[in-house]
Amino acid sequence: MDWTTQISGAHNRIAAHVVETPTVSVQSFGLAFPVELKLEHLQHAGSFKARGAFNTLLSNPVPEAGLVAASGGNHGAAVAFAARALGHNAKIYVPEIAGQTKIDLIRSTGADLEVVPGAYANALEAAQDWELQTGAMQIHAYDAPATVAGQGTLFAEWEEQGLDADTVLIAVGGGGLIGGALGWFENRRKVVAVEPATSCALKAALMAGKPTNVDVSGIAANALGARRIGDICFDLAHNARTPSVIVPDAAIEAAQHALWRDHRLLVEPAGATALAALMCGAYLPARGEKVAVLLCGGNIDPEPLSDPATQLDVSFT
Amino acid sequence: MDWTTQISGAHNRIAAHVVETPTVSVQSFGLAFPVELKLEHLQHAGSFKARGAFNTLLSNPVPEAGLVAASGGNHGAAVAFAARALGHNAKIYVPEIAGQTKIDLIRSTGADLEVVPGAYANALEAAQDWELQTGAMQIHAYDAPATVAGQGTLFAEWEEQGLDADTVLIAVGGGGLIGGALGWFENRRKVVAVEPATSCALKAALMAGKPTNVDVSGIAANALGARRIGDICFDLAHNARTPSVIVPDAAIEAAQHALWRDHRLLVEPAGATALAALMCGAYLPARGEKVAVLLCGGNIDPEPLSDPATQLDVSFT
Repeated sequence: MDWTTQISGAHNRIAAHVVETPTVSVQSFGLAFPVELKLEHLQHAGSFKARGAFNTLLSNPVPEAGLVAASGGNHGAAVAFAARALGHNAKIYVPEIAGQTKIDLIRSTGADLEVVPGAYANALEAAQDWELQTGAMQIHAYDAPATVAGQGTLFAEWEEQGLDADTVLIAVGGGGLIGGALGWFENRRKVVAVEPATSCALKAALMAGKPTNVDVSGIAANALGARRIGDICFDLAHNARTPSVIVPDAAIEAAQHALWRDHRLLVEPAGATALAALMCGAYLPARGEKVAVLLCGGNIDPEPLSDPATQLDVSFT
Repeated sequence: MDWTTQISGAHNRIAAHVVETPTVSVQSFGLAFPVELKLEHLQHAGSFKARGAFNTLLSNPVPEAGLVAASGGNHGAAVAFAARALGHNAKIYVPEIAGQTKIDLIRSTGADLEVVPGAYANALEAAQDWELQTGAMQIHAYDAPATVAGQGTLFAEWEEQGLDADTVLIAVGGGGLIGGALGWFENRRKVVAVEPATSCALKAALMAGKPTNVDVSGIAANALGARRIGDICFDLAHNARTPSVIVPDAAIEAAQHALWRDHRLLVEPAGATALAALMCGAYLPARGEKVAVLLCGGNIDPEPLSDPATQLDVSFT
């Protein structure tokens, strides 16, 4: 696969439909060195997944029946958002366990949403039935070339914005995002995978020499909890000898709180996972090594503004 | 006052101490035109006020007794943050009505914080006593040249980042921020003041032809609720014939929710006030007029992460 060509093509294809998410360089988090952050959680539908969804829809003929996805997470929200933007129908099967925030997010796009009793497997089964019945198109969440190329546009964009880093830290679930990074950067920058100790499909695959099933749980599981790494990502990471570092859930939560406390950046646990590797020392940069961290998602639960705003009838500045 | 020189000097003086806050261009909020946002709520201590505090401390000799401020708001947090960064003592008198979030924020800087029973006036009295007793230095929240010049650096920075707008919308409380904008932009761009209907000291002053006392209340009062506009701001706004548009609290709340829902930007009500003017039609750009909006503060109440994170032991992406 010529990833440079695929990602460049995707970058042109989706540019008018995605947010060029900003970057900021900060010296914080108790670290002795500055960190460049890319704020991809400000993307449409709250995560990088919008990139892969738009690229897939814009590079394939979409059947009249539209799209179908089984997801209560960021992928489902991105598919629903992209479908609405491009005028396609979307049928999204959501496991009831997804939680109200993501259900509301998907519903707000106008997608035809069906909450399925049980867990993800039940929703997937319902989605597959719908696909067979109607001819609707499924978009793979991470293990399809158009998805990986779409996620790779993030890194092309970041370099256009002047990315100044030797090393980029990226949280990994099923591997679509880091696959895009490896495809785009090739050997020009070091890419470090960061996985929760409770959900580490890439680490397990790299140790086994092939994709292998893992148990998943923990604070970031609703975004990073893939039971098996995608083949595309595995091949790229295996060939590039990509290191995967593991972080405990407590470090993820600490990073999430630090991002809010120090910089008013509110991300979901998955969005704080890459930073956690620096804060807890799981990844120690060499002296002078410039590091950048991707904040990949912001769909936190519960909604931060669901409570009525505090009203103060007083004046002070 | 030669504001260009003052602000350029401040810009060099504080550059190493403040965050160069990012900008992002979005097409959202039900608007038919794109809006350029500057994310100043990502500044240290959660608002632009850090700029004025650093500029004041770096351009004046600081007495051994350090600093004193009466504030339960963004100014107090910024003074405490800047004092710690530069190694000065800070004594902050906080009215008990300030709320736990801002009290915690100020306390986290290591400032000597005293919660004063009653409202702002009581805290101010205590601060003035302390100033007389110890010789500690007070920093005015908005009506002092070094404060206004510090806030003006935001607009110098924005132009360096490539600000592409005919018109910049800015929320107004005591006028330090918009004073800096008027000082920096002069006649090169149109500056529009946005004030809550419940706290509109600039509007009242422009109508009366001089600063005048107003009642303040409402959703943004803990940041924008100045009872009287600063003289520096009034003179600049009066001379520039700056328009002030008024927005209802409901529009501010709607803008605050839209920023989170559409872009995962979590700001306090004051931080959403300028955008509210576009969303509710209080300011209607001309055809082709390019608009930019400043998001000035992010210290929301209650803390979004105070609840324990939801833990999901399931996998879906």
